[in-house]
This record gives sequence, C-alpha cells and structure tokens, in this order.
Amino acid sequence: MVVAILQKIANSDLFNNFIIGIIIAAGVVVGIQTYPELRNDPTLSLLDSIILWIFVAEVLIKMGSQGSRPWRYFLDPWNVFDFIIVAVCFLPGETSFAAVLRLARLLRVLKLVRALPRLQVLVSALLKSIPSMFYISLLLSLLFYLYGVLGTFLYQENDPVHFEDLQTGLLTMYRVSTLEDWTDVMYINMFGCHEYGYDSSARVPCNEAAAKALVGEDGIAWSAAFFFSSFTLLATMIILNLFIGVIMTGMEEAQKELKGFDGSTSHKDDPRAQLQTLSAQLETLAAELKSVKIPPDDGHAVAGDD
Amino acid sequence: MVVAILQKIANSDLFNNFIIGIIIAAGVVVGIQTYPELRNDPTLSLLDSIILWIFVAEVLIKMGSQGSRPWRYFLDPWNVFDFIIVAVCFLPGETSFAAVLRLARLLRVLKLVRALPRLQVLVSALLKSIPSMFYISLLLSLLFYLYGVLGTFLYQENDPVHFEDLQTGLLTMYRVSTLEDWTDVMYINMFGCHEYGYDSSARVPCNEAAAKALVGEDGIAWSAAFFFSSFTLLATMIILNLFIGVIMTGMEEAQKELKGFDGSTSHKDDPRAQLQTLSAQLETLAAELKSVKIPPDDGHAVAGDD
Amino acid sequence: MVVAILQKIANSDLFNNFIIGIIIAAGVVVGIQTYPELRNDPTLSLLDSIILWIFVAEVLIKMGSQGSRPWRYFLDPWNVFDFIIVAVCFLPGETSFAAVLRLARLLRVLKLVRALPRLQVLVSALLKSIPSMFYISLLLSLLFYLYGVLGTFLYQENDPVHFEDLQTGLLTMYRVSTLEDWTDVMYINMFGCHEYGYDSSARVPCNEAAAKALVGEDGIAWSAAFFFSSFTLLATMIILNLFIGVIMTGMEEAQKELKGFDGSTSHKDDPRAQLQTLSAQLETLAAELKSVKIPPDDGHAVAGDD
Amino acid sequence: MVVAILQKIANSDLFNNFIIGIIIAAGVVVGIQTYPELRNDPTLSLLDSIILWIFVAEVLIKMGSQGSRPWRYFLDPWNVFDFIIVAVCFLPGETSFAAVLRLARLLRVLKLVRALPRLQVLVSALLKSIPSMFYISLLLSLLFYLYGVLGTFLYQENDPVHFEDLQTGLLTMYRVSTLEDWTDVMYINMFGCHEYGYDSSARVPCNEAAAKALVGEDGIAWSAAFFFSSFTLLATMIILNLFIGVIMTGMEEAQKELKGFDGSTSHKDDPRAQLQTLSAQLETLAAELKSVKIPPDDGHAVAGDD
Repeated sequence: MVVAILQKIANSDLFNNFIIGIIIAAGVVVGIQTYPELRNDPTLSLLDSIILWIFVAEVLIKMGSQGSRPWRYFLDPWNVFDFIIVAVCFLPGETSFAAVLRLARLLRVLKLVRALPRLQVLVSALLKSIPSMFYISLLLSLLFYLYGVLGTFLYQENDPVHFEDLQTGLLTMYRVSTLEDWTDVMYINMFGCHEYGYDSSARVPCNEAAAKALVGEDGIAWSAAFFFSSFTLLATMIILNLFIGVIMTGMEEAQKELKGFDGSTSHKDDPRAQLQTLSAQLETLAAELKSVKIPPDDGHAVAGDD
Repeated sequence: MVVAILQKIANSDLFNNFIIGIIIAAGVVVGIQTYPELRNDPTLSLLDSIILWIFVAEVLIKMGSQGSRPWRYFLDPWNVFDFIIVAVCFLPGETSFAAVLRLARLLRVLKLVRALPRLQVLVSALLKSIPSMFYISLLLSLLFYLYGVLGTFLYQENDPVHFEDLQTGLLTMYRVSTLEDWTDVMYINMFGCHEYGYDSSARVPCNEAAAKALVGEDGIAWSAAFFFSSFTLLATMIILNLFIGVIMTGMEEAQKELKGFDGSTSHKDDPRAQLQTLSAQLETLAAELKSVKIPPDDGHAVAGDD
Repeated sequence: MVVAILQKIANSDLFNNFIIGIIIAAGVVVGIQTYPELRNDPTLSLLDSIILWIFVAEVLIKMGSQGSRPWRYFLDPWNVFDFIIVAVCFLPGETSFAAVLRLARLLRVLKLVRALPRLQVLVSALLKSIPSMFYISLLLSLLFYLYGVLGTFLYQENDPVHFEDLQTGLLTMYRVSTLEDWTDVMYINMFGCHEYGYDSSARVPCNEAAAKALVGEDGIAWSAAFFFSSFTLLATMIILNLFIGVIMTGMEEAQKELKGFDGSTSHKDDPRAQLQTLSAQLETLAAELKSVKIPPDDGHAVAGDD
Repeated sequence: MVVAILQKIANSDLFNNFIIGIIIAAGVVVGIQTYPELRNDPTLSLLDSIILWIFVAEVLIKMGSQGSRPWRYFLDPWNVFDFIIVAVCFLPGETSFAAVLRLARLLRVLKLVRALPRLQVLVSALLKSIPSMFYISLLLSLLFYLYGVLGTFLYQENDPVHFEDLQTGLLTMYRVSTLEDWTDVMYINMFGCHEYGYDSSARVPCNEAAAKALVGEDGIAWSAAFFFSSFTLLATMIILNLFIGVIMTGMEEAQKELKGFDGSTSHKDDPRAQLQTLSAQLETLAAELKSVKIPPDDGHAVAGDD
C-alpha cells in the first residue's frame, strides 16, 4: 500500500513542480548568502535546513517507491547525483570543511537539470556530442601541447609571467587561442621584457640578459611574431572545424528527427512510399494486361512479343 | 464620408512615405540636439513641435479611420506603441522629467520599424525566435548563476572590483563570456590583488590579507585558472549551441518559405505533385484496361487472371 | 588590319599574363617604397615609370581593339576603373598632391581583381550579397543610431573621450559591438571618470562634478551596466542574424550553381526529368490502349468506359 | 623469410600500439624537460636515447619490410617525415645546434598524426581544403597588402611601434583583423602619439611634430577612424566568407560521404533507382500492349490512333 502511494507521489506532476519550486528557492537562498551581512542570517539558515529536509524527503520517497528493492534507486545516475548532493551536507562540518558544504549547497541548483526533462535532454545531447569531437579535439590538444612546450623552451627566461613552466605556458596558449590580448604576449617576446610589458611593478622582474639574448642585435625577434601569428591562425582554423563538426552533427540529428516526425505523421507524402505504390499499381496493370492478352489466338501475340 | 476619406488617407502610399520621411527627420533632429550648442536652438525646437503635431495628426487620422469604434485602434499593439510615444510628450514637463522626454523623442526613431513592413517582419521573426531558445537560454543562465555565485563566494574579498556582490559577479561573468580581457580577471584571482591589477590608483584598495589567504604559500591559485578557463570553454560552447539553434531555426523557416513560394509559382515541378498525377494516370489506365478486358468472352479472362 | 591585330593582342593569354606580372611588380615596387631610404631610389622611380607606360599601352591597345568606336571601351566599368587609375598619375603633380598620387599607385594593385576573372566573380558575388542584406543592415543601423544618440546624451559630460559628440559616440558603439575593451567604456560610465580610466595623462580631463552627478550617492550607475550589456547582446544577436543571412544566401547560390551543373552534365539522373519521361510514357500507353479498345465491337467498350 | 617477418611486424596492431605508446612517452619526456631543474636529468636522457633507438628500429623494420627495394620506403611522404625526424637527431650536435635538436625531439609528437589513421585523414582533409580557399585567400591577402602599405605610408612617422616598416604594418593589420585591441592602434593615429599611447616608457619615443602634422588643427584625424573601421568591417566580412566556404566544402563532402554510404547499404530506397525500375516496367507494359494490339484487324487501330 505504502509503496503504491509513494510511487503515486513520486510520479505526480504536483510533486515534481513542488520540487522545482524548492530548487529555485534553494538557488535564491544560496545567492542571497553571497552578501556577507546576510550570510549568517537565522531566517536564511532555517530556510536552508527546511530545503535540505525536503530534499531528504524526496530521496526517501523515491527510494521507498522502489518497494522491497530500494537499491534500484541507485541504478539511475541522476538519482546518485541527487543522493550525493544531499548526503554531502551531513558530513561532519568542521570549519575547514565549510567551503565544500557551501559548494554542495550551490550544486543543488543543478538539480534543476534533473527536474526539467527537456533540460535533461539538452544536457545529454551536449554530452553525447563530445565523443564525435574526439579526434578534432586530439588534434587541437596536439597543437596546444606542441606550441606550449616550444613556447616554454623559447620564452621561459624572457617572459616568466606567461611561460614560467609548462602549465603556465599551456594556460597562456589557451589565452592566445581566445585572441585575448595575444599581442601583449607577442610583443613581450618580440621586443624583449626590457622593452615591453615588464615595468617595475611587474610580479616577476625582467631578466634583461635573457631578453637581449632572445631579441638579438636589432631588438626584434621576428620568430615570436611568426610563432604567435601562426598559432592564432592554426588554432582558430581547427576550432572553426570543431565548430563545423558540432553544427554538422546538430543538423544531421535535427534532420533525422524531422524525418522521424515525417514518417509518423504524413507517410503518404513521402516520395519513396508513393513510388512503391506506383510500382505495385504497375504490377497489377501488367498482370491484368496478361489476362487481356490471353483470350485472342496465341500465335500472333507471341509473334508480336518478338 | 469623413471616415472613408480618413481610411483612404491612412492606407495611401503617399501618407505612409510622408510619415517615413517625418520619422527620419525626427531622428535627424534628435541627433543634432546631442550637440550642446544646438540643444536649445529655436529652429530645432520648432521643427520638433511640428514633428510632434504631425504624429498627433497621424494618430487621429488612424483612430478616425476606425469610424464609430475608435477604440479598435488600440487592438494593434503597434498602434499602442505609436500612441504611447506621442502621449508621453504631453506629460507635465518638470525639469527632472526632461531626460524621460528626451528618451521619448529618441524612441520615435523606432516608429521606422512600424512604418516599413519588411522591417516589421524582420523584428517579429527575431522576437519569435526567442521562445525556441528558451531551454538553451535557461541552461546558459544556470551556468552564469552557478559560476557567478561561486565566483562571488571565492573572490569577494580578494577582488571586490569584479566580485563585490552577486550582481557585480554576474556582470563580470557576462564580461568573461564575451572573452573581453578575461585574463585580467583571472590573473587578479590567480596571483592575488597584491600582485596584479590593484595598484594605488584602484577604485577599491587591495585587501592584502585576503589575497594571501587565497593564493596560499606559493602565490599562485591554480583553482582560479581552472575556474575561468572552464567557464570560457563551457560558456562559448553553450552560446555556440544557442547560435546553431538560431541558424537551424532560421534555415527551416527559410526552407518553409521557399517551399511556400515553390508551391504557388511552379507547382508542376514538384516531384510529389508529379507522382500524384502519375498515380491518377495509372488508375485511369487500369480502369480503361478493365473496359478492354470485358468485351471478349469472360471465361478466358478470368482464367487468365488466375 | 591594325584593329584585328590589337584585338588578337588584347584577348591573348600571353598579354593577360604579362599584365598580371606587371601588376604584381607594381605592387612590389609600391611596397618597397614604404621604406623611407628607398622612397626616392632612382631605379624604383624608373621601374615605376616603365610600369605606368605599360598600363598606358594596355589602355591604348584595349581602346584600339574597339576599332572605329573607341568610346565603347568605357562601357565596361572595369575599363573605366583601369583608365582612372592610369589617368590620375598624369594630373599636375604639385607637392601637396603627392599623397594622392601615391594612393593612385597603390590602387594599381586592385587591377589584379580585374585581371583574374575568378577574383572578379568573387568580388561581384560579395557586392551582390549587399542588397539582400539591406533590411537587416537597416535594423543594425537603427540600433547603432539609437544607442549612439542615447549614449551621447547620457555620457557626454562624464566621458568626453568616448561620447564627446554624435560621431564619437557612434564610433564608440561600433567599437563596443566588436567587443573590443567594451568593459573599459562601461566601467568609466558606471563608476564615473573620477574613479576609472581618466588619470592625469588622459587626453581630456575628467569633469568630476558631471561624474558624481551621473553615478549618484553610492558611486555605481547600474544603468550603464544595463546600457552596455544590452547593446552587446542585441548587436551580436543582430550581427549573427546578418551572418546567417549571408550564409543562407551563399548556400542557395551554391545549390543553384550545383543544380545548374547537374542539369548540363547528368540530366537523365534528375528525378523530375525522369518523372516527366514516365508521364510521357504513360500518355503513350493510354493512347495505345484506346487504339486497342476500339477494334472490338464499339458498344461494349463505350459501355465499359462509363 | 626475414622480409615476411618484418612485414608481419610492421603491419601488426601490437607494433602500432607500441609505437603510439612510445610517441606519447616521447611527448611526456620532452614536456618534463621544459622544467630547468629536470632538463639534464640522467634518467630522462637515458629514456630519450631509448626512445630514439626505438624509432630507429621502427624505420629499419619498415625499410626491411620492403624487401629487396628498401627505397620504396621513401615513396610514402609520411615515411619521409618519420625518417627526417629520426635523422636530424644524428646530426653533429654542436652547442649552437642544441635548439634545433630540441625542436626535432618535440616534432616527434607529430608522429602521432601518422600513427593514428583517423587523425591522418583529418589532417589530410584540412590540407585539402586549402586549395579551394585559394581565391578568397588571395582577396584577403590583397586587402591586407593594400591596407598594410597605405597604413605604413600614412602612420609610419606618427606610430613607429605599429607601422615602422611594411612587415610591422602587415603584422599590425593582422592584429587588427583579429579585433585585438584595435582601438588602441586607431586612437594613436586618430589623436596623435603625443596624446595617446606613447608615454615616457614607450619603446620608441613619439615624434611630436609628425603627430601634429597628422592630426591637424583640431587634434582629431577622422581619416584614421575611417581607415581602421572600414578595415575591420571588410576583413571580418571576407574572413566570414572564407569560413562559409570552409563550411560549404565540409558539408558537401559530408553529404557525398553520406550518399556513398546510402548507395551501398539501401540501394532499393533510392528514388532514382525506383524511377528507373518504373520506367523499365512501363517499357515492358508498352511492349506487351503492342502484342495485344496486333492481333485484331489493323485498319481500325490506325484510325483509332488519329
């Protein structure tokens, strides 16, 4: 009896809409708590506790609706996600742990993706498009790694802010690929840090000897201009191709879907089906013609067939 | 009689073109008035009054052309828009209200959208494409909210210029999503405000203790690099998908329109229509064949059918 | 005789390739002359004169090849373009006129578009796509004008560098629409010029009173955040739609072209042509069936037809 | 015997996967060596030598698998690429040559493209799309050259940092086309270097006389605003068209591929094949009808045909 009632509750629209409302409320509460003066407001803390217990109730209702096999609740990855978000709030709350708890409360907003089926479909579609992008992403990673390692080798000593080590170099290459102030990075390594970008207030002082060794006699390292220009060109080109890939995949999916809809709604407008009907009609005609042909004296007909 | 004349005027091309001319003149006048030395020029003020009264006349003519039911004028939302723009200029003009009046005069330029039917279609199309984008926009909003709240929690004390409160944080995330100087925001929270971006002339002084707490011992908070890199990646990906959605919708609309035009202009080139014609021809043929079959003695024909 | 020879020359591949070579040489010469130390090099000046006289010869040959009606040369707009570029070099060369002459010499590079037919087709295609973009461009212009005038009204006194007058305001709005450092413009008008962007080295001093009037008591004018955020959103949206339009037009053109090629090369693979053939075959069949029907005694056949 | 064994090895999946693993290891080693403290680590140097000898072995195995004609190994350009990467490491290693060696070790990562067939296909596709972009690239180059030369002529003296000579000017135009801080370049040449961008710390001092000659009496050279605005507009437009071209080519390729798949898997669903079947059926019908028509007395049939 109880199981049937719990199932009815878990599947009712009213319950789902109520949970959606609570998720939005949870998001608003966590947003309000960004204001320092309201962070420890007792009303908000109370609201937060109520929201938490409602989510606990939701988990219990959904587990209960599985009847005698509550572990089946965990077969749906979204349920696991729900459970973790709730469970993490019951971890022993030491002071150093407060930040994680706050993050967990923020992640409750993501339950909205779960609660709205169409949003869930959208996120699944986005996740599904990742594997089809595997090889182009690999090519892009190769380009980043190649330029990142080369940039670190070449500009490590002249420009420690952007190329101190490999991780910094890769971050800088990512930044350059978004075209964000890429010329600043280029000019530092084209003219040397003693001429561009490293003034007295810089985080790391300029190694003037290294800079002069890099830019040489005439003070301009054209190789840096080539390094960064070619990277921006190649990176935007490959990213563009990645985007085309995404668009292509998206369009094919959409066409398939459209074809699916066509098939079910207006079958008789489909040219292929029409052609099959025609073919069937012609076969009937041919069969009928044969029956016409037989009655007269056979000899002539056969002769005519030759 | 009067109503018929007013209708004739309201629907005449001459009247419409005249109104378009007046709207352009209104736009030019309001543009000239941006120059402080010409703002209170008497000729311009006179022109402005004339334009206003012409718009009043337009409203009256269109109302009058509805005959005995002038309220029907308000059934068209564009008419309501026209009326409000004119009416707002007759509000009691206090000095503090001058700015609103000026804005109202500027909005007259928007009457151009109303006056040019094809521009009206375009704007309607743009407005119509908004609902189809609802879920992807919701996902984007969720992403902005999540990163906005998290960013405010994490960087509020180190970087008050960009993350003072939630609204500032959301504005900063919008800015980062346009890739505009996003690395500056990242570097401030990666190296701490005492090392990057907050010099003595900054609007808000740097809280050095908070900065050091954020970046830790080695002075680099790699979490900030991850925070901003992942956001730019996710935001541009989802925005790209939103754009694909817009492109897809636009293409479907265009194809529908094209099909519509095809249907009216060159129906006989449509394969489906051709196939239906063929099918009809075959049915006629079959009917005629039957009539051929009947005259000879029946027995044979039936036998032939087996 | 002479006319025939000139026509032969004007239409020969050798002559065209020679002219292409000379155009490239002209481009290289004008490029070398950007180096101050080589600007008045006698060898380059001699080369320049030779190139000019070759272009004069080209004009004369093409005019001469029109026979007794040399004015027909001017019927082709590209010829007019060629003629002007040559003619402008013979204008009386005063010192103040030197810059125009230099520009004219630079424009010779554009003769390449004329000399390479496929480049000419490409440029024509780009020019032809402009009218189809008329209404969306009008909408974009309306948006720029509206925000430009409003921005000038609102921020003229606080931010004279970006909104001194209408033309400066429109240039700033164009800049904001490219997302280039748009947040700098926003922050100046959000926090006031006394807090952001106008230091002692600024081109125009900050009007502190106007700034404080704009930002009000709490020092933040959120209206500016809304003004610039909404503009970037709307402008990129409409520009995106303009781009979709260009893509759509480009794709339709390409499909038409492809269809054109199909039509000429593999007509018998076209489904429509196949359907017409089928229809014709069926009509022949029907006609033949009638002839079959008639021979037996008429009464029955006619009855069968009913 | 040996040849057969070598061929078996060269074509085995195990050997290929092993080589892929070694390439990744080579990439990791060269990445670790960017850290100065690990650059001369003996373990890494040993690893590096082992990797090199494995690549030598790979070359020898592939050469040996060609049997008595080892030179056929060089017929595949990818093999030439492999060989050069290995060979360059055996060049006499002088100190000044160390950088080239390091680059050669880095290029080993590119062997991954060779080792993964699908990555190879992708790179080939990217390379193949280049020729189809020839004329649009030429147009873009023409635009860059024209604006580069003109910019160098006009702004050489006012803004030596961005327009010192033609190569600097072209680099600046490339930068402007990526919309990266393009307004800074514009403002320098609009207001003069004495008013914008050239402070005491600039790499090249401002030539105040040249700046004043450029901006004229009122201190604003609107021609610079026009120069840079028109360039950003034209360059983004043409680049957009180049991108559309890439998208178009990509889509056609994809459609061709799809059609290819269709053709092989579901031939009987193809409308064209169906139509041909129909046409054949109708021809059979017509032939049969003729055989029906002949037996009766001819005179009537001919009359019926009229």
